[in-house]
Amino acid sequence: MRCEVVAVGTELLLGQIVDTNSSWIGEQLATVGIDSFFQTKVGDNHARIKEALELALSRADAVVVCGGLGPTQDDLTREVIADVMGVELVFDEAIADRIRAMFGRRGRDMPENNLRQALVPAGASAIAEQPGTAPGLVCPVGDKVIYAVPGVPWEMQQMVEGTILADLTRRAGVNAIIHSRVLRTWGSSESGLAELLAPEIDRLDRAAGVTLAFLASGIEGLKIRITVKADTEEEADRLLDEEDARVRQIIGDIVFGVDDDTMEASLLRELGSRGLTLGVAESLTGGLIAARIVDVPGASASFRGAVVSYASDVKFDLLGVPEGPVVSEAAAIAMAEGACRVLRTDCAVAATGVAGPDEQEGQRVGTVWLATVVDGEAEVQHMLLPFDRPRIRQFACISVLNMLRQRLIHRHPGSGG
Amino acid sequence: MRCEVVAVGTELLLGQIVDTNSSWIGEQLATVGIDSFFQTKVGDNHARIKEALELALSRADAVVVCGGLGPTQDDLTREVIADVMGVELVFDEAIADRIRAMFGRRGRDMPENNLRQALVPAGASAIAEQPGTAPGLVCPVGDKVIYAVPGVPWEMQQMVEGTILADLTRRAGVNAIIHSRVLRTWGSSESGLAELLAPEIDRLDRAAGVTLAFLASGIEGLKIRITVKADTEEEADRLLDEEDARVRQIIGDIVFGVDDDTMEASLLRELGSRGLTLGVAESLTGGLIAARIVDVPGASASFRGAVVSYASDVKFDLLGVPEGPVVSEAAAIAMAEGACRVLRTDCAVAATGVAGPDEQEGQRVGTVWLATVVDGEAEVQHMLLPFDRPRIRQFACISVLNMLRQRLIHRHPGSGG
Repeated sequence: MRCEVVAVGTELLLGQIVDTNSSWIGEQLATVGIDSFFQTKVGDNHARIKEALELALSRADAVVVCGGLGPTQDDLTREVIADVMGVELVFDEAIADRIRAMFGRRGRDMPENNLRQALVPAGASAIAEQPGTAPGLVCPVGDKVIYAVPGVPWEMQQMVEGTILADLTRRAGVNAIIHSRVLRTWGSSESGLAELLAPEIDRLDRAAGVTLAFLASGIEGLKIRITVKADTEEEADRLLDEEDARVRQIIGDIVFGVDDDTMEASLLRELGSRGLTLGVAESLTGGLIAARIVDVPGASASFRGAVVSYASDVKFDLLGVPEGPVVSEAAAIAMAEGACRVLRTDCAVAATGVAGPDEQEGQRVGTVWLATVVDGEAEVQHMLLPFDRPRIRQFACISVLNMLRQRLIHRHPGSGG
Repeated sequence: MRCEVVAVGTELLLGQIVDTNSSWIGEQLATVGIDSFFQTKVGDNHARIKEALELALSRADAVVVCGGLGPTQDDLTREVIADVMGVELVFDEAIADRIRAMFGRRGRDMPENNLRQALVPAGASAIAEQPGTAPGLVCPVGDKVIYAVPGVPWEMQQMVEGTILADLTRRAGVNAIIHSRVLRTWGSSESGLAELLAPEIDRLDRAAGVTLAFLASGIEGLKIRITVKADTEEEADRLLDEEDARVRQIIGDIVFGVDDDTMEASLLRELGSRGLTLGVAESLTGGLIAARIVDVPGASASFRGAVVSYASDVKFDLLGVPEGPVVSEAAAIAMAEGACRVLRTDCAVAATGVAGPDEQEGQRVGTVWLATVVDGEAEVQHMLLPFDRPRIRQFACISVLNMLRQRLIHRHPGSGG
């Protein structure tokens, strides 16, 4: 079973938007065992979109076409698919009602041209998930299929996860169940992990049905993907669990989560199971630590708040940091202690440093001090990060969260408080 | 003159690396007036790379192929190009010397397989720029050309900027300059903007050389791209400026920036030009507003800090919010006033509301109260957002920044304080 991806939009060719959708879709296809040999970007032009779709259909069994489903004259995907199918566009009342209802809920009038989005090629059906005004479409073309999804990533992703992957594997008619799980790690290099896991990868090469792969994911640490192939769901889950346990035994506590687990979700679990509350004091990260924490639903069970002390005198006045250099061990500790006191929490994390562009207090760009407090006791860590401004901040953020996570695991073994 | 881009690498199809190279190359081609109608990603497979190159050559005058020039057996681009040209690979002593010298300078022995990188298709020439071990190649195919560049972004970029763009424009023999500018807007729907601008788009359709296009960019508002074609740089800039002014006259103050400008950068400019300082109090956005602001280099000129009052009693204790419902007009105003007082700033923004997953104080998920303070005077705005948790927070964040931006523009006309 082969599936190509065609991304539509002149802005993609002009480099005004980077096409992350195709990459994301490619990753999803790979995990369910669908081959994807070509991915194409094409502009908002009827003849060329048609050429791209027909070529993709000639080489593959299915095509996901992404973008060009908006309400404007530029949005040609619906018309081109009808052309490729050799059918007319028909007005779908049910879709029109959905779009009207959506504007209604937002308390806004629907502009007339949004009804263009209710036109579908005859014989196509709407995808059940429709988070925005653009409906996704399943369009049969002979015994092949074109899936049309919007270019807005979160709308597209819901449709791929909710409908398209299941439809593809059903069409593939494969009985093998393919499952995968990603172990997320923080604190090792790719080559370090590869060395640690080399014997296990050798062992798996001689067995069947289980593979390991490394996925770099930039500033968010390294991922190890375990993929298993089995005859039943139960067997697949058993193989996954076994390999998961084996890998963790080899690489230890650098695994902070699985699949879409984030460092902050992992930390909140450790806090929650111990009934501990968390406060944050941040300077160079400027709110990023707090923002990541509250991104986790249910964060309020442990997280009480943060003081973003960007100006030095906010550190002195509000957090009680002693006057003096603020990119320092002493300031980091005082910030974390101040957060515990001001926000009345059991634990705190704090970050101060120089994100650039300019050095500060004679300290180099990339200088970072991180501190944690647990039960009144502070620990501190120093880093010199060879990155640019956004990456220094991201790296500091995830590092200090991991620092507290590891302290909690080692100071409070088991789940007791 | 048309030039396609082919990106080579199985990791691109699997989504392990996002193909930013093609986007970057597309942007460079557009600025020198070369059309690029298709971009293709293909895996490390001889037959399929060949198919992609031949198809691209059949549709265009030139092809930039990116990746697959490394020293390993996986790196097939050199061989495939030789195959497409119908020639043999020959060993290029000059390139081999360059690679040996490069290892010498790094004090390392050259592994033998790096000499694979000195094999070039007969008739091809090396690109002068060679920042890494992989040489770039200019490969004539009849009267067309394939440029091969490495997948490492900074190596590729030096070759494109140093050699390829000039070679392409020389081959094109055209002097047309194409420039584009993106106007970023907040506060209108795509179809609303399209309706407003329809007469202008009609007018442009009848003229030559200027086009408008809409680009949705998810939660970050809508973009309007102006593209102009002219004989000289000066003429292009003049046309851009004229159309920019015309569009702004039609759609008004919803334009907050151009090109890569963000809302927060735009707000910081307004604050900076008036010598005003900013504080933030946030609840449902949990640090996101502050994090976005400090993402702008130089934010410290205006931004002093933030209080993330996630738990209700942090609002009461630290910001002086009166006890009572915290998802309310009164709480939003008190938070903004509290931020001004506690952080000692001229202006403040505040956001409180329900991001979900559960309702709070009987208020629906998506209920948001935003407040701004300028010179001691508060204004407040209520929203009911039909989004999921991350989007409610993002939307609240950019909305409250825009609210303050528009207040500053209207209360302080010109650049005076």
